[in-house]
Amino acid sequence: MGYYIAVDIGGTQMRAACIPCEKISPLIAKRISTQGLNATPEERLVELITTIWPEDQPVAAIGVAVAGWLDAYTGVIIEAPNIPGWGKLPLRQHLEDIFHVPVALGNDANLAALGEWRFGAGIGHHHLIYITVSTGIGGGVIMDDRMVLGVRGMAAELGHVTILPDGPMCSCGQRGHLEALASGPSIARWAQEELTKGKPSILPVGSPLTAKDVAIAAGQGDELAKAALARSGSYLGLALANYLHIFNPSIVIIGGGVSKSGPLLFEPMKAALHQYVMSPEYLDNLTLTTAALGDDVCLMGALALACALVPQHASIT
Amino acid sequence: MGYYIAVDIGGTQMRAACIPCEKISPLIAKRISTQGLNATPEERLVELITTIWPEDQPVAAIGVAVAGWLDAYTGVIIEAPNIPGWGKLPLRQHLEDIFHVPVALGNDANLAALGEWRFGAGIGHHHLIYITVSTGIGGGVIMDDRMVLGVRGMAAELGHVTILPDGPMCSCGQRGHLEALASGPSIARWAQEELTKGKPSILPVGSPLTAKDVAIAAGQGDELAKAALARSGSYLGLALANYLHIFNPSIVIIGGGVSKSGPLLFEPMKAALHQYVMSPEYLDNLTLTTAALGDDVCLMGALALACALVPQHASIT
Repeated sequence: MGYYIAVDIGGTQMRAACIPCEKISPLIAKRISTQGLNATPEERLVELITTIWPEDQPVAAIGVAVAGWLDAYTGVIIEAPNIPGWGKLPLRQHLEDIFHVPVALGNDANLAALGEWRFGAGIGHHHLIYITVSTGIGGGVIMDDRMVLGVRGMAAELGHVTILPDGPMCSCGQRGHLEALASGPSIARWAQEELTKGKPSILPVGSPLTAKDVAIAAGQGDELAKAALARSGSYLGLALANYLHIFNPSIVIIGGGVSKSGPLLFEPMKAALHQYVMSPEYLDNLTLTTAALGDDVCLMGALALACALVPQHASIT
Repeated sequence: MGYYIAVDIGGTQMRAACIPCEKISPLIAKRISTQGLNATPEERLVELITTIWPEDQPVAAIGVAVAGWLDAYTGVIIEAPNIPGWGKLPLRQHLEDIFHVPVALGNDANLAALGEWRFGAGIGHHHLIYITVSTGIGGGVIMDDRMVLGVRGMAAELGHVTILPDGPMCSCGQRGHLEALASGPSIARWAQEELTKGKPSILPVGSPLTAKDVAIAAGQGDELAKAALARSGSYLGLALANYLHIFNPSIVIIGGGVSKSGPLLFEPMKAALHQYVMSPEYLDNLTLTTAALGDDVCLMGALALACALVPQHASIT
């Protein structure tokens, strides 16, 4: 009965998998680097899809997750800061012209939410929030079993809300956004600032830090590193309280590299959530959990998008 | 072909109208006070509905807007601070048992959004945000032609998001919420504080102020009063920028008494919106407007809810 093709395109690498429509088994994805010397990213993408194109059965649909802003309805990339040349690019049309099958595009964090809802931690939930905490903070929202996309598919930018007016600069150019306070780089930056002030720590002064360095030091009991994670967790908890008031979900899923920091991040996050939620009714039966699909989450989301575009009653095995 | 009954219940008064399903004409509502000496609010409500019950044709459905928190799916009032005794009240069941027709309940601000979408400023839009700025700040959101309700119908509390951590106390008990910074009482409170500090103004020192007093003084050119409105407008604009990132709507509708303050509120709001939005893409083709349905907005929303519950292809005339 054919195949779906799922693609996940990041700034560094792109991955693609070909999945039987009738039997969605664990993904085996082929990966290549997004940028190369002799071809544009879109040429490399076409080559990648061609490489995994099945010979025995037709392809029902292609779902594509892109790290960037895009118009989810027209399939036009608006801006993908990490992929050179990908601004105002009608990628969906381009792929449909070449492969002659239906193609749908989605923002990677939006599709991660869709993936977790369809195949991961969110199965059975109808109202879901997914927040990925990594180099940036992205999000995806499912309400009433449908993605919240907005008029052009640019909704659910859950990292880009003001938490602290006049706070640190965000990657988007605004100040005090959640991303500027709780993302991996912001954890590292804060720890570095505290080190520079002379605060005691096992972290090295003067050399570049990552959130992973901070998490490792925190795991070893370093107070400054623990405070850096707790600060991020507290801001996440405050933002989550707002999102409960805005969306009243039954599940909140936290994904992304920083979410692997464990209780040193999550306990302060939960404490802040309880402190800032305006009524315990919002916490009744709320599931707060980490992502289940790991590194495949965006690819599984792209698959879920392809399934939604051309349903074939796929079931996971 | 029958009638819809629409009801709007506030802390002070309740209004009800009986509308022909086939011809939705301007509403003529009967109003009574919500609280009385010899009857509970729900007894008064039943009496009000009975009074307007039509004799010539059946009633297709009853839609009810309530100033309070409720579970929109079960029709149970969770808490209505301004209506004595209305906590954990299964109002939908109660009305269905008495009137034997389908009944649906909605939060008043949610239904105001629905009313504006179906009959007012939002006609033709699929992604809409409605914010009412009055004694409190409430909201309603339509995404993809459906109300954002969340798992229990407690979503879209757009006034209860933290804008200024450690800011002024909000009616909900949290600090620095939008409602605590931009609602009518918060405008009056800030003006009063500035007066107490000795700032020059034509506003009277030492006597209670309302937002309306401030708006009138601002209209007469009073600098302190203008600053109070501008402050509220700026916080609204900042919150709106967040909501554009979260919902990417095609229209934002501002309702409620404070929205009548005009340009002295709206110009600072627009300036802040432009300052805080992270990409001009969110403003492309965005309609920013005031509510069209005036005092009937919640009643029209209750009517829209009844229409959605039992569709009769009603059209407005």
